[in-house]
Amino acid sequence: MKPDDRNLAPQMQRTPSAATFVCPDRFERDMSTWYRRRWLCVGRTEELPRPGGFVSRRIVGMSLLIMHGRDGRIRAFYNSCRHRGTLLTESAHGHLAKCRIACPYHAWTFDCDGTLLGAPGMKEVEGFDEADWGLNSLECDTWGGFVFVRADDSIPNDPLLQSLADFPEKFAAWPLADLKTGARIEYDIQANWKLILQNYSECLHCPSVHPALARLSPPTSGENDPANGCYVGGRMSLNDGVASMTADGSTRRPIFPKLNPTESRHVYYYILLPNMMMSFHPDYVLTHRLEPVTPDRTKMTCEWLFEPATMARSDFDPRDAVQFWDLTNRQDWHMCELTQRGIASGGYVPGPYSNREHLLFELDQVLAEPIDQ
Amino acid sequence: MKPDDRNLAPQMQRTPSAATFVCPDRFERDMSTWYRRRWLCVGRTEELPRPGGFVSRRIVGMSLLIMHGRDGRIRAFYNSCRHRGTLLTESAHGHLAKCRIACPYHAWTFDCDGTLLGAPGMKEVEGFDEADWGLNSLECDTWGGFVFVRADDSIPNDPLLQSLADFPEKFAAWPLADLKTGARIEYDIQANWKLILQNYSECLHCPSVHPALARLSPPTSGENDPANGCYVGGRMSLNDGVASMTADGSTRRPIFPKLNPTESRHVYYYILLPNMMMSFHPDYVLTHRLEPVTPDRTKMTCEWLFEPATMARSDFDPRDAVQFWDLTNRQDWHMCELTQRGIASGGYVPGPYSNREHLLFELDQVLAEPIDQ
Amino acid sequence: MKPDDRNLAPQMQRTPSAATFVCPDRFERDMSTWYRRRWLCVGRTEELPRPGGFVSRRIVGMSLLIMHGRDGRIRAFYNSCRHRGTLLTESAHGHLAKCRIACPYHAWTFDCDGTLLGAPGMKEVEGFDEADWGLNSLECDTWGGFVFVRADDSIPNDPLLQSLADFPEKFAAWPLADLKTGARIEYDIQANWKLILQNYSECLHCPSVHPALARLSPPTSGENDPANGCYVGGRMSLNDGVASMTADGSTRRPIFPKLNPTESRHVYYYILLPNMMMSFHPDYVLTHRLEPVTPDRTKMTCEWLFEPATMARSDFDPRDAVQFWDLTNRQDWHMCELTQRGIASGGYVPGPYSNREHLLFELDQVLAEPIDQ
Repeated sequence: MKPDDRNLAPQMQRTPSAATFVCPDRFERDMSTWYRRRWLCVGRTEELPRPGGFVSRRIVGMSLLIMHGRDGRIRAFYNSCRHRGTLLTESAHGHLAKCRIACPYHAWTFDCDGTLLGAPGMKEVEGFDEADWGLNSLECDTWGGFVFVRADDSIPNDPLLQSLADFPEKFAAWPLADLKTGARIEYDIQANWKLILQNYSECLHCPSVHPALARLSPPTSGENDPANGCYVGGRMSLNDGVASMTADGSTRRPIFPKLNPTESRHVYYYILLPNMMMSFHPDYVLTHRLEPVTPDRTKMTCEWLFEPATMARSDFDPRDAVQFWDLTNRQDWHMCELTQRGIASGGYVPGPYSNREHLLFELDQVLAEPIDQ
Repeated sequence: MKPDDRNLAPQMQRTPSAATFVCPDRFERDMSTWYRRRWLCVGRTEELPRPGGFVSRRIVGMSLLIMHGRDGRIRAFYNSCRHRGTLLTESAHGHLAKCRIACPYHAWTFDCDGTLLGAPGMKEVEGFDEADWGLNSLECDTWGGFVFVRADDSIPNDPLLQSLADFPEKFAAWPLADLKTGARIEYDIQANWKLILQNYSECLHCPSVHPALARLSPPTSGENDPANGCYVGGRMSLNDGVASMTADGSTRRPIFPKLNPTESRHVYYYILLPNMMMSFHPDYVLTHRLEPVTPDRTKMTCEWLFEPATMARSDFDPRDAVQFWDLTNRQDWHMCELTQRGIASGGYVPGPYSNREHLLFELDQVLAEPIDQ
Repeated sequence: MKPDDRNLAPQMQRTPSAATFVCPDRFERDMSTWYRRRWLCVGRTEELPRPGGFVSRRIVGMSLLIMHGRDGRIRAFYNSCRHRGTLLTESAHGHLAKCRIACPYHAWTFDCDGTLLGAPGMKEVEGFDEADWGLNSLECDTWGGFVFVRADDSIPNDPLLQSLADFPEKFAAWPLADLKTGARIEYDIQANWKLILQNYSECLHCPSVHPALARLSPPTSGENDPANGCYVGGRMSLNDGVASMTADGSTRRPIFPKLNPTESRHVYYYILLPNMMMSFHPDYVLTHRLEPVTPDRTKMTCEWLFEPATMARSDFDPRDAVQFWDLTNRQDWHMCELTQRGIASGGYVPGPYSNREHLLFELDQVLAEPIDQ
């Protein structure tokens, strides 16, 4: 990783205005510019592994239905019948017999590629053609075993892989597509989604907030990458004798075999804007998916990913990694919540960033800039 | 009932926009044009049978006090003292000693015809005349044992009976004014009030949603009336061997004695716009009263009405009718709630009505049209 | 107390419009003109008796941190770190070791006079000067052992003592600064803050609402003062044989020694606008502090204050005074809540004040008038 001259002292850059974090209008603008027009991670392909598999998701006010087609392709639709609009399923995930889903209200039936197969009582309606009434779809693509969707395709020529830029190449040594979820924890955080991204982007708080983490990885060891495509992030080194981020710094899991010596001695923390955070460890991958609910509330899904071969071992136990990060997560969410409350105290004015918070300033610039014109 | 050529295929009519069901501004417009300017059913006269009887009701943000006067007339008032505005009673119903109600705050006392009878400490106020400070009233009238009120009387010459048109005559064979309530169930439905009216107006969903109902009454047997005054509806036939809509299609209750052979072999389902649904069975009457709360929430009171002579029989048991419709209601509310959620999914666009949903299109037209000018 | 010709009959003055009590925009205007620009009582100095003592308070959307400095002065700040805005403490009160408070996020440390003492990682930031980043403060002053703050100092030359006018002199016989809190009860009232002030300003409701109170103090004995500075109020006499306002009218507590014969035979009820009500009894002082939350919700803190020497007696028992006023409070809040509901009933129009509600009309005028231009 090249030395980055952007880590040098900026001219006392300031934190954003209170409105950035508390104003409902600003939140709506964030949702329409960032969440409805960018690629959002909505889960893992392992949740719908075979044709007929489906998951339903709610994110930023949208109800989505993601289905695995007979042709092996995964597609995303709105969870809404084309007849009267009824939600097609309330199940979070499942498997569709014969790759078909029927609306519970009037039994309109759709193939899992979205095609309308049957519409009781519609034959005699003049001008009705089943071909016109397939499910409404969103852009959908996968990378590394993650499923991404994009609601508004008005930015042309922005395929997922272009948005990821060189990120896949950078982490080619981790076998992402093969990994399986060994643990999942959901959090409900009373803070703005951008405070959570800010918190993820500096370790200046580690000595006071995360003493256990600071014993495994030096808080000042962070080296940041220039932002590129949708990603922002950097790496931190592991202390000598520390094998991975776990309760005691040891691990019984093998490290990913293709890692080079540098990769196996660091942890890599990246944000994939706007709704995902990924950290690459020597022996596991941790992901955080954000769902902003209101200016001061964000739901979070955190997953720990491991190699199937490792998970198949009789001594496999993810708890060392889960407990370590669950504790760290809770410490972080508490700080985000206190910051949300203090920003809403009536007395907040933008404060000064230190040089170790440069990535936050960069993030502020990116998040503040209007998208295309 | 005459054959109705309006049941013929319309040119692929479409469902309304999402805003119709989810938009707060549209909801407010519905409330001011439909709920504050039309006759609303607020209960049965049997709840306040004698002079001094009263009920209090909350409906669409209004707190009402309905009282039975010494003169036998039932009147509706706002539940608010003319002095400082205090709510006069928190009781849902009761009986006023001496036909008087006293404000709990400063003891202003009103007759149950609304006249101010006493106002402590007001005698010495120059210009104060008790005659000016009777309770503020609403239009109130009764028909068939039902109490109706109208908040805004700015549409002149719209008495209740004119609004009902030929509806009383149509159902003259049912002794409505004599019936008593044998059961009541209240529901809290997370759906727009118009989705509930739509659901009531077609039986295309009966095969998939109500298999038990479909065994008693053929889903395709519906014959609709032209809308007239405030009513919209039609009838469905009973299968051979089915006596009424009950769990097993039988009934131990006598049928209403004045029904003709056609009336005793059908069930009649009508909406009295905007807040009532009535269904006439051979041996009982079922009513639904809606109270819209927000665009996506409606409270519902459902009552089963029987003849007093029938209720007095030692073997009277309303459970066969109650359980049948309670099950059917819950199936319907579930579909209304799924439709509300799907319409709010982000991907809803108006869909096509089948020919068996013609009444919904008619209802949409009526509900969409602006009232006077 | 001089006879007040303003108690003579006004020309049938009317209560305010419904919007005054239910409209969110009007509520916001009340908060910005009255609560953010006037002196608010936020507690007692006894809660932070020594240097290093602190209390945190939320009031009308503001989070405040009030600290007792090394110099003995009590100061008020926003509870928000100057770095990233984090809430400095979640504790309602406590004592700061070494008179310092450290932000839990990045350990910026402040003296309890607000000065920034240390900011990890900021030394190398060009242009950063610790002297620029002390805590943001509000005006703060004390009188009679009460702590007052003022958020917006845009009205110049309005010190606390000027706002209190001759109030301190009027009640010089009560040793307010020495008193200690013997009991505290918090209430959550579903009514507008101004209905609570109105309720406090007349005893016309006492016969119907407070029969126990009416036995101790004649409801018609009220004599009101002309409003002056921030205060509005008057006094009521005690019946013969009644020593104080307690469950049975007796008290085992000595009366305050400096009271003159008139003072010891009356109870004095005053509002200090906008958020405090104080009543002076022969043997104790009762205070109510309001925190408006929404147009129809107000939190209330009620405290009973006694002389330390009295509290030190082995037979000290405040329950006679606490139970009497707790009952009376609950009766009052119930009337305020019924009035809030009736005003929102849809049928409220301004009603007539009696001559015994003159103080309410005066209060309406004061609260309606726009502040400086």
